[in-house]
Amino acid sequence: MADKQAESLPGGAWSDEPPPPPPREPPAPTAVDTVKTALAARFGNRYSANESVREQHGHTLTWLPNQKPDAVVYPQTTEEVAEIVTLCAQHKVPVIPFGTGTSLEGHVNAPHGGICVDTSLMKRIVAINVDDLDCVAEAGVTRKELNEALRHTGLFFPIDPGADASIGGMASTRASGTNAVRYGTMKENVLALKVVTPSGEIMKTARRARKSSAGYDLTRLFVGAEGTLGLITEITLKLYGLPEAITAGICPFPSVKAACDATILTIQSGLPVARIELLDELSVKAVNLHSKLGLPETPLLLVEFHGTDAGAKEQAERFGEIAADFGGGPFTWASKTEDRTKLWQARHDAYWACFTLRPGAKAIATDVCVPISRLAECVEQTKADIAASGLVGPIVGHVGDGNFHVNLLVDMTDEDEIARAEGFLERLVLRGVDMEGTCTGEHGVGQAKMKYLPKEHDPAALEMMRTLKRALDPDGIMNPGKVVEV
Amino acid sequence: MADKQAESLPGGAWSDEPPPPPPREPPAPTAVDTVKTALAARFGNRYSANESVREQHGHTLTWLPNQKPDAVVYPQTTEEVAEIVTLCAQHKVPVIPFGTGTSLEGHVNAPHGGICVDTSLMKRIVAINVDDLDCVAEAGVTRKELNEALRHTGLFFPIDPGADASIGGMASTRASGTNAVRYGTMKENVLALKVVTPSGEIMKTARRARKSSAGYDLTRLFVGAEGTLGLITEITLKLYGLPEAITAGICPFPSVKAACDATILTIQSGLPVARIELLDELSVKAVNLHSKLGLPETPLLLVEFHGTDAGAKEQAERFGEIAADFGGGPFTWASKTEDRTKLWQARHDAYWACFTLRPGAKAIATDVCVPISRLAECVEQTKADIAASGLVGPIVGHVGDGNFHVNLLVDMTDEDEIARAEGFLERLVLRGVDMEGTCTGEHGVGQAKMKYLPKEHDPAALEMMRTLKRALDPDGIMNPGKVVEV
Repeated sequence: MADKQAESLPGGAWSDEPPPPPPREPPAPTAVDTVKTALAARFGNRYSANESVREQHGHTLTWLPNQKPDAVVYPQTTEEVAEIVTLCAQHKVPVIPFGTGTSLEGHVNAPHGGICVDTSLMKRIVAINVDDLDCVAEAGVTRKELNEALRHTGLFFPIDPGADASIGGMASTRASGTNAVRYGTMKENVLALKVVTPSGEIMKTARRARKSSAGYDLTRLFVGAEGTLGLITEITLKLYGLPEAITAGICPFPSVKAACDATILTIQSGLPVARIELLDELSVKAVNLHSKLGLPETPLLLVEFHGTDAGAKEQAERFGEIAADFGGGPFTWASKTEDRTKLWQARHDAYWACFTLRPGAKAIATDVCVPISRLAECVEQTKADIAASGLVGPIVGHVGDGNFHVNLLVDMTDEDEIARAEGFLERLVLRGVDMEGTCTGEHGVGQAKMKYLPKEHDPAALEMMRTLKRALDPDGIMNPGKVVEV
Repeated sequence: MADKQAESLPGGAWSDEPPPPPPREPPAPTAVDTVKTALAARFGNRYSANESVREQHGHTLTWLPNQKPDAVVYPQTTEEVAEIVTLCAQHKVPVIPFGTGTSLEGHVNAPHGGICVDTSLMKRIVAINVDDLDCVAEAGVTRKELNEALRHTGLFFPIDPGADASIGGMASTRASGTNAVRYGTMKENVLALKVVTPSGEIMKTARRARKSSAGYDLTRLFVGAEGTLGLITEITLKLYGLPEAITAGICPFPSVKAACDATILTIQSGLPVARIELLDELSVKAVNLHSKLGLPETPLLLVEFHGTDAGAKEQAERFGEIAADFGGGPFTWASKTEDRTKLWQARHDAYWACFTLRPGAKAIATDVCVPISRLAECVEQTKADIAASGLVGPIVGHVGDGNFHVNLLVDMTDEDEIARAEGFLERLVLRGVDMEGTCTGEHGVGQAKMKYLPKEHDPAALEMMRTLKRALDPDGIMNPGKVVEV
């Protein structure tokens, strides 16, 4: 190339002087550069292309490689989000919505680069309608912040994934948690959403009525879509009256199977248990270490009942009887609020507690959900598989829903162990799906579970998901590389 | 034309004989004729193009003109439905799903002709999973048939629109009823659907797990889509344990406002009321006449509590106290099962009962739903509007949800009255929507409420609904002329 060029130049091969370099045009700015420049000018110190900020906004909570966005921007209003998305749409630059970054399956990675829209400055609580048992809040409000704002109203918002996640992120991943057995998941508790569409338009999905039959359910279309169809900026949520009485307690069981069987009967008996959480012996050990508790290191159920004084007591007594039928007990009460709070905080910290079992390991948190009649069998087989695979993986679960989590602790320098972990994960999904269950009860698909969707869904259903994605986001700019590849 | 032809014929103008008629080809069969011929051959006596059968399958329960389909076919399996839809898709012939024909807004009319798919032979109960509190049933099973099948299981299915509707139709219209305040609507109670897509493919929308985050919520996309995106053939439903104790009763109030205010406080207090139904004085009169009851002819609340013996009793006592605060009472119990059954049957027959108030009139049943804090105001204004408009319109309502019905009784020979009724309907919708409510809480859009969707939804939301329709049903064959026009 250089030679050819030299030959064609005046003076060429006969000159001793190297030929002057050809005049170089600056490279044409790429689409993403154009967007970055415009956003930097528009958002000032609410914009960052700093390396470490970008990395913090790539994926953090799994073993997936971090894929950072090209820049991060911090809007304060829905209108600003619309501005950002409109700009990105004009230049076909990816938009990655970001709440608190606590999702577990690579939801916030940026495999195709693009602009991360961090909603953490969108903290406005727009309305608390005490009389209607609902509220309207911006996407960046976390579940604890919301409950703090509700503190003097007598109402609460029950959905509680382990992390103090943002309600926007929770809506986007169809999150649930320990209270779902009684209060439902985000699917049942979102009344309406304000969304910025992939073309940058602002729309509400529904009004504030408790129920409606007025057209397609756009609300449910966005709940669980993981930001791939639009960006949720504001959420109208159902609230609940704080129960008059709460009784909670701990019940040890001789085996995980016995605990699961007691759970099944509790649900089948129609006991309106508010929380029923399984910790296997390994999880109890981790929680004891992490939260300085002295729980008996056998499989445990943590339970909670909400109701009137008489009602909650009656429920707890019935549960005690059921537990005893399966060799469980004694059922010990945590009557004081601070004991209860400590107990549930320990449960919520189970993810972090696991690291005490194997410091330095990486956690691979996964969840499946099966019809409750298959729960004991599924958990037992999974425990056996963990043992046979030579892995460390404590199990916790929202067992009232048939939903449980395995938190594999993996030495990422050991390729053989990684391969065994991957094999285990695949078998876990297939086991759950074979039992008419789902590959994820509440974590979502993100990047990591995309490959499992064809195991769970009919080809026509998966193709319909792709059709929806293509129809609503024809340029594929919204959180690309997640849920379904089109 | 005749002259021209004559000139060109041999013999032409010179012959006395009229020219022989030109050889006539039989008219090319239309697409719908082709489909009809194929269906007749395939389905034999499960196919009909009989005039009265077609008319019965056009719209029946409103004042909308009957628009009959070209033929009616009665499949027995999902595979047969797929065959029918595939054939219609090939010829771009409309498909109109039909359950029991009890929808209220013109859902089963055939404005563009086409094939009505009557699911009344699809009565199979595929599975009752007692341990999982769910069941799988074909679309043609009615809610009463399902509960009959569940009779010896200790479980029940709570959703109860007035009519003994099919569960396929109930899913399609996002139906609810008197129990929704406690058990939710079809939206919350459908776990999964089997659907025939507009191209004739069979797919399941989800598996049987209680919750899932595995991709877009296809289930909720079809619930409430009124058959415009596909045809529901099989439904997986949540079930509930029969409560140990049921207490029910009647509470008269001095005014509709007092009854609504008592309802609001009941809900706000977190009393887990299972049913709380308003009948205004005119509805009570109609129900008394129709069902031979002796209820006091003042505004009434019919309430029901589910729970343990102690729990249900406690709830009923609290309600009695709340009612008294608003001048309501005495709260009289219907403790015997047969009294309760009679009471609720009377409530469910309220639609039919209304005709006793004005024999020969047509009923225009409509419903709106508002945030409960606005309920008393909305009902009061509506009553005043009925009076000012010189109309007869008893009001009943699932007031725990903020949802109420007006059943206008209109003399269809009186054009002035019809015009007043139309004006009233429009004002009712606008009133509900202005109070952050919806133009329909549970009846659906059908044909009659299409014009109100732009009052309720943002232009971008409505356009998104059209985009969904176009993407999933590009030829527009599924129940055309309903929900959204594309």
